[in-house]
Amino acid sequence: MNIRLPTERLAYGGGEAVVAPIIHALRPLLGSGRQLAARAGVACDSWRLGVEAHNVIDWRTVPAECEGYIGHYMLGEHYRRDFAVVVDEAVAYAETLKLAGNGKEIWVFDIDETSLSNLPYYAKHGFGATPYNATSFHEYVAEGSAPALPETRRLYHRLLELGVKPVFLTGRTEDQRTITVTNLHRQGFSGWEKLLLKPAVHATGELQGSAVEYKSGERQKLQDAGFIIVGNIGDQWSDILGAPEGARTFKLPDPLYYIG
Amino acid sequence: MNIRLPTERLAYGGGEAVVAPIIHALRPLLGSGRQLAARAGVACDSWRLGVEAHNVIDWRTVPAECEGYIGHYMLGEHYRRDFAVVVDEAVAYAETLKLAGNGKEIWVFDIDETSLSNLPYYAKHGFGATPYNATSFHEYVAEGSAPALPETRRLYHRLLELGVKPVFLTGRTEDQRTITVTNLHRQGFSGWEKLLLKPAVHATGELQGSAVEYKSGERQKLQDAGFIIVGNIGDQWSDILGAPEGARTFKLPDPLYYIG
Repeated sequence: MNIRLPTERLAYGGGEAVVAPIIHALRPLLGSGRQLAARAGVACDSWRLGVEAHNVIDWRTVPAECEGYIGHYMLGEHYRRDFAVVVDEAVAYAETLKLAGNGKEIWVFDIDETSLSNLPYYAKHGFGATPYNATSFHEYVAEGSAPALPETRRLYHRLLELGVKPVFLTGRTEDQRTITVTNLHRQGFSGWEKLLLKPAVHATGELQGSAVEYKSGERQKLQDAGFIIVGNIGDQWSDILGAPEGARTFKLPDPLYYIG
Repeated sequence: MNIRLPTERLAYGGGEAVVAPIIHALRPLLGSGRQLAARAGVACDSWRLGVEAHNVIDWRTVPAECEGYIGHYMLGEHYRRDFAVVVDEAVAYAETLKLAGNGKEIWVFDIDETSLSNLPYYAKHGFGATPYNATSFHEYVAEGSAPALPETRRLYHRLLELGVKPVFLTGRTEDQRTITVTNLHRQGFSGWEKLLLKPAVHATGELQGSAVEYKSGERQKLQDAGFIIVGNIGDQWSDILGAPEGARTFKLPDPLYYIG
């Protein structure tokens, strides 16, 4: 199956320039609006809203009857529009900041489904409706082929222009550092202040604790080191919950998986 | 204009029993899905998602080009479906609670757009797209005619059955206590533990501070009095942000207004 992602479809200004022909794994039949959602027993668009507003939590897989709905949502323009609105708010906020100019102001970026898209993987693996398979997912990550989310890249570059330093804080582990750096560089991300990864996972399951605990702990260390977290953006609520959160947080859409 | 609200349309089990004929102020033409949203320059459904996930904040009015979209969303079944998913999660959570049985466990309910709907007012006043008018809104509240949000009433009654005591915590003021009690009783809410209202507003603008400060302060008093806040539900993020939030929080949809 040859899958081209629509991640390059929207020009930076929100235009409709098509960079390359797009072959959808799922061809949108009805869009991802009401009609499609209503066909299933579960109200799939209401489920997705519940996820985004953090009412539906601790879920393992997308409801089976919503796989098609989520697929159309992700591959069509709907996801990209929802994503763009969040980034537009983040850019507008960043442009209002009065910066001290001392180089201590940072913006925390998550990586997966925030800066890089794993949609090529999820399009082949049930759009989150099938249980997570660590082996095949890590094989995909090791390719270093994940495309940028271009809206986030737009925010990233604007922050560099403004003098706010990007910091990546990810659930990826140290053994994935080299390929992650390679992938980020290939996709137009460079010049970050830090790239914070988790210690490599050992067979004994060394990594205990929630994502919230891990990420808030790392942000606390950044703050203790004198950094000021002016913004924080991620696709999971666990990216942006837990003090210190950062002066303002942004939740990007992600109906594919839940990390608590 | 005779407006019947669809608040009674869904039976408690999610069925489609129609209690009364419904006359819409706006007749849904295309639903509130993608096509309608895409007609406007603003991506109205993406804007609404941005509001619900707390990315779009501090806004004064619904974007002018989204008035029709929001009207259709609110008067059609979409709002009710989104609302029901949140309440379903809340009920499921409540049913997992291991209660001490000492009568100290409470659930905090907001009132407007959480327990009672002001949609009859907003349907006549631009669905949030025109600036807030305190005079006409207070006249509407004084009628005591706001219908229940039936899904919230379902949660409320389930909590009473389980032995969790409801507490209302509202931005309504003490001078509105009598009509608020009357309205709640008329709409099937009774047996609450407390109804907490703000001090009456004086001409000098006595009420300073944000809704987050006010509501979190009141929750702190409840906790200091020995109550355990097992749940907290509201339509505004300011209902559920700010420690102590409660053991779990639920954000109901509301694209009509923002209270910070």
